[in-house]
Amino acid sequence: ALFSVGAAKADDELLTLSKDPKQWVSPTGDYANLRHSGLKQITADNVGKLAPAWQFSTGVLRGHEGAPLVLNNVSVTDSSGKTITTDVMYLHTPFPNIVYALDAKDPAHQILWKYEPKQDPAVVPVMCCDTVNRGLAYGDGKIFLAQADTTLIALDAKTGKLVWSVKNGDPSKGQTSTAAPHVFKDKVFVGIAGGEFGVRGHITAYDVKTGKQAWRGYSMGPDADTLIDAEKTTHLGQPVGKDSGINTWQGDQWQTGGGTTWGWYSYDPELNLVYYGSGNPSTWNPNQRPGDNRWSMTIWARDLDTGKVKWLYQMTPHDEWDYDGINEMILADQDFGAGKKVKTLVHFDRNGFAYTLDRTNGELLVAEKYDPAVNWATKVDMDKSSKTYGRPLVVDKYSTQHNGEDTNTQNVCPAALGSKDEQPASFDPATGLFMVPTNHVCMDYEPFRVSYTAGQPYVGATLEMFPAGKVLGDGTNHTGNFIAWDARTGKIVWSNKEQFSAWSGAVSTDGGVTFYGTLEGYLKAVDTKTGKELYKYKTPSGIIGNVITYESAGKQYVAVLSGVGGWAGIGLAAGLSKSNEGLGAVGNYASLANYTALGGVLTVFALPN
Amino acid sequence: ALFSVGAAKADDELLTLSKDPKQWVSPTGDYANLRHSGLKQITADNVGKLAPAWQFSTGVLRGHEGAPLVLNNVSVTDSSGKTITTDVMYLHTPFPNIVYALDAKDPAHQILWKYEPKQDPAVVPVMCCDTVNRGLAYGDGKIFLAQADTTLIALDAKTGKLVWSVKNGDPSKGQTSTAAPHVFKDKVFVGIAGGEFGVRGHITAYDVKTGKQAWRGYSMGPDADTLIDAEKTTHLGQPVGKDSGINTWQGDQWQTGGGTTWGWYSYDPELNLVYYGSGNPSTWNPNQRPGDNRWSMTIWARDLDTGKVKWLYQMTPHDEWDYDGINEMILADQDFGAGKKVKTLVHFDRNGFAYTLDRTNGELLVAEKYDPAVNWATKVDMDKSSKTYGRPLVVDKYSTQHNGEDTNTQNVCPAALGSKDEQPASFDPATGLFMVPTNHVCMDYEPFRVSYTAGQPYVGATLEMFPAGKVLGDGTNHTGNFIAWDARTGKIVWSNKEQFSAWSGAVSTDGGVTFYGTLEGYLKAVDTKTGKELYKYKTPSGIIGNVITYESAGKQYVAVLSGVGGWAGIGLAAGLSKSNEGLGAVGNYASLANYTALGGVLTVFALPN
Ligand SMILES: O=C(O)c1cc(C(=O)O)c2c(n1)C(=O)C(=O)c1cc(C(=O)O)[nH]c1-2
Ligand SMILES: O=C(O)c1cc(C(=O)O)c2c(n1)C(=O)C(=O)c1cc(C(=O)O)[nH]c1-2
Repeated sequence: ALFSVGAAKADDELLTLSKDPKQWVSPTGDYANLRHSGLKQITADNVGKLAPAWQFSTGVLRGHEGAPLVLNNVSVTDSSGKTITTDVMYLHTPFPNIVYALDAKDPAHQILWKYEPKQDPAVVPVMCCDTVNRGLAYGDGKIFLAQADTTLIALDAKTGKLVWSVKNGDPSKGQTSTAAPHVFKDKVFVGIAGGEFGVRGHITAYDVKTGKQAWRGYSMGPDADTLIDAEKTTHLGQPVGKDSGINTWQGDQWQTGGGTTWGWYSYDPELNLVYYGSGNPSTWNPNQRPGDNRWSMTIWARDLDTGKVKWLYQMTPHDEWDYDGINEMILADQDFGAGKKVKTLVHFDRNGFAYTLDRTNGELLVAEKYDPAVNWATKVDMDKSSKTYGRPLVVDKYSTQHNGEDTNTQNVCPAALGSKDEQPASFDPATGLFMVPTNHVCMDYEPFRVSYTAGQPYVGATLEMFPAGKVLGDGTNHTGNFIAWDARTGKIVWSNKEQFSAWSGAVSTDGGVTFYGTLEGYLKAVDTKTGKELYKYKTPSGIIGNVITYESAGKQYVAVLSGVGGWAGIGLAAGLSKSNEGLGAVGNYASLANYTALGGVLTVFALPN
Repeated sequence: ALFSVGAAKADDELLTLSKDPKQWVSPTGDYANLRHSGLKQITADNVGKLAPAWQFSTGVLRGHEGAPLVLNNVSVTDSSGKTITTDVMYLHTPFPNIVYALDAKDPAHQILWKYEPKQDPAVVPVMCCDTVNRGLAYGDGKIFLAQADTTLIALDAKTGKLVWSVKNGDPSKGQTSTAAPHVFKDKVFVGIAGGEFGVRGHITAYDVKTGKQAWRGYSMGPDADTLIDAEKTTHLGQPVGKDSGINTWQGDQWQTGGGTTWGWYSYDPELNLVYYGSGNPSTWNPNQRPGDNRWSMTIWARDLDTGKVKWLYQMTPHDEWDYDGINEMILADQDFGAGKKVKTLVHFDRNGFAYTLDRTNGELLVAEKYDPAVNWATKVDMDKSSKTYGRPLVVDKYSTQHNGEDTNTQNVCPAALGSKDEQPASFDPATGLFMVPTNHVCMDYEPFRVSYTAGQPYVGATLEMFPAGKVLGDGTNHTGNFIAWDARTGKIVWSNKEQFSAWSGAVSTDGGVTFYGTLEGYLKAVDTKTGKELYKYKTPSGIIGNVITYESAGKQYVAVLSGVGGWAGIGLAAGLSKSNEGLGAVGNYASLANYTALGGVLTVFALPN
């Protein structure tokens, strides 16, 4: 690591570090969210020999999402008080959000420092989908943690000492943090969770040095709140007009309108734009909130310095199924043939469509189903001259709005947790393929009327999930697939069945190998080109963490957190057993209990010496 | 496994199974407590290639002692409802004492069944030294668990269904269970813990089939309670006389006299004798309980069928340091040269002496210090004609009795947790060596007056522990050694320094390799002959479990539980930080927090295919 001291250079430093494949300096691997590594010691030929090299139990039981950061050549003090220069792994846990700085190089893997925040455990019951945390960010010599209780803290990366701290929200109103902070340039960005508690979403930029708020952009509300410009901000090429974040809502429902921002963020330094998605409109009962509910379920492109919105794209207007739009925005520069290079943004949405957009202007290029089971919409209208251009064409039978309150709409695909949830995909430049961990799950959905009380659940629907095979009638009952996707053509190139939803982030490598984890606990390596399974290892618990790879002392390592939980693993994590508990997920994943139990462990793999 | 149905054959079955090196059917490996395996696929030559093969997180955080059982060819029902014949690993956890039956053979290592007892958590605060449990026993088609709350249960090994259950004690009086049950012949044996709560120790035999109590033998009290025969029971060859369990106590202090039985038991089928040790006399303040305090701190040999005591040997009369005598009794048949074969019992006591006795009659053959630091006694008097024959010769300077109440007796070696605690040693027949995980720790000890209240701590001493190097003045500050011991000569053959006390049970093998774990989390393999370190792997957490080895589908595996805790790890396990907390252990092991955090994980190792 450089750990530059000069103020002006902090942002250059992070950009430089993120281009070094030996390190893993951001929760997304790089600004572009590619989750691809240039390392290639581990190849399709030798990955079969992979084995765990060392491990670390975090001391926390519930679901472990995210991944550690790895910074090389950090000058730290070891436990004997000596100053050493070593490679450091920064590891986080779910609530209570402990941060460990581990020596990644020394064979004893000492804990160089540990930081345990003091948080009021009252935050736990207002976390919708397990007490997860998706990781840390690095920037300007500091490690950033977004605590469950929404406190954003900056720790000295060398010592673990608190540098500054700022409160981003209020858990007593159902506001929580599960997303990783993201450092881009001189700012650290944090979102807010609580779409199931009527929280109005926002993204906030803080100064990395001081913690001073630079700007906040809400997902809905007047233009002054959303930082939308009536004239200059476009939706599918058209200016959005005044107060677009209000006028598709009834009355002041936008004030409890959801659109939370608990996913992954990306940044294009050339365009100086920050990209992310907003979540479901609150409540889950669509009948209660007429209108398109802008800008829930939307892809956002904001200016990094000002927060001003350049363009937006609402994928699921007036959501009726909880298809949060928060999944990662992958900023891949793609070759469309005949010399046509496009700065794309690729997004695998919960609603089952994979979107390819021109990220310079938000033009919609491709929108295709990435799970054949998807049935709630026939397609996204791609006819630019159509009145419904860019909108999904909803099938009445699966419309919980059309069927109405207190009616159980059956066999909707995908289920609320989407064809993919927060588990991030990777982009492999060599093949041009996206490696996508997916869910293959459908649901019954019965909306009911609720009233809003701050800090109380504002859900308004009863769900029950089950394998997509039940709807497809194809005799299968697996609930996941790991697929390769061509985002230029909108086609699945290969697809591997997974017994359970693949709830772990992928990493592809220049070695031609892609890694991901499975809910029953396997770390798997597949051939990026063909999907052929080359290696698997049963880690201590189910994997909902994201795989990363790094190099230390000349050797390539692959690391992943196991520790079952998250929405899919909520039955195990929270000890629930009724099938419609856990917002409808418990029954669908009940058989996970035949394979795994709780417990957070980092496993680091390597080839034998 | 045979899983014989016929009543008469149950005991033959277990004896047969325990002779099969492919299985690990008792908490001690075999009746004799040798912890030696006849397997030899893994050798000194190839062990360097060892690697984790699969893992299982138990879902429980605190200290994981003991080891799983492995039974091969068990007919069970898998999660899909199919009947399969497979190799089953039976795994236990600390409180709440979950039992898992894992498929050791199937690559997914399914949970075949899980049993979670319902226990009142009020038992936790009356467990002295973490919420540990030392494992399960098998017999007569059943898996036996001694719950923390002293309930002994029998589960159907195939289904996990409760067959019978019996209450062995009362936690409201400070009685708990941490020891593994032991099945010998047609009986299951359980002890009781609570020496720090004035519990009068006892061993109880229950019928494996019905749970009916066969007999109970107390550690102190009238002969009717102890099952001692005034004439026939001998101590160093002499009849003990009437009511020997009363007449070395003042008044009725024997009723709260301790001598608990929370260690490992052994059985010699030819002699039909069960061997075990009793713990410290209560309170820890010796000034309060004049006399030898018989039969605390004693090696016992009882008839399996009747409980009648054949012989005893009190190692530490009138204990002044908490040197519980409960460590394992290793029934090794040893060759003393010149054709002299002796049925020995070898015991590495907390007090720092290793005893070799003739187990047929309790004759004392050898008693030597197995840590050179031991200073509380100069030696054990081996002169048969001496009045103090068989007694340790106590050094006044280190006598907390001599120095008196409210005086801090300093620099006593070993510390209360002994030169070795419950972590069991192994015996390697090929070399004739015992492989012994040891502590290298001394203490300050200040006794104070206490009064007895049922269910309340009855400790009466303040302790502080530190590395033995502080007393030896040799500049070292490690707190453990792993040693090879010749029990015929009473000499250390080789000794490896360990940074922390070696709090994990060893297993030696016919491959010439011995395995053990370390408190900071390494699984280590050493050359049995020379002690040369051949392999180490950093498991997820500190190891206080015992290593085992077994064979499944033609391949040798090595398995161990990691999950730091126990007395040495009590600071981490119970979140204590003052150095004299945790009965004086916290300060001495504070730096463990630089290496590891909590979390129970089973790791199974194998050579690569
Ligand atoms: O609306 C929200 O604010 C919100 C928050 C979260 C979260 O913070 O984890 C999830 C969701 N929604 C959600 O819809 C969802 O599918 C989900 C899955 C998970 C997970 O970590 O497994 N979290 C969340
Ligand atoms: O006197 C007792 O009843 C009693 C019980 C236990 C126990 O049950 O774990 C320990 C001890 N004493 C004890 O002295 C001791 O050193 C000890 C260590 C441990 C452990 O598991 O690490 N338990 C116990």
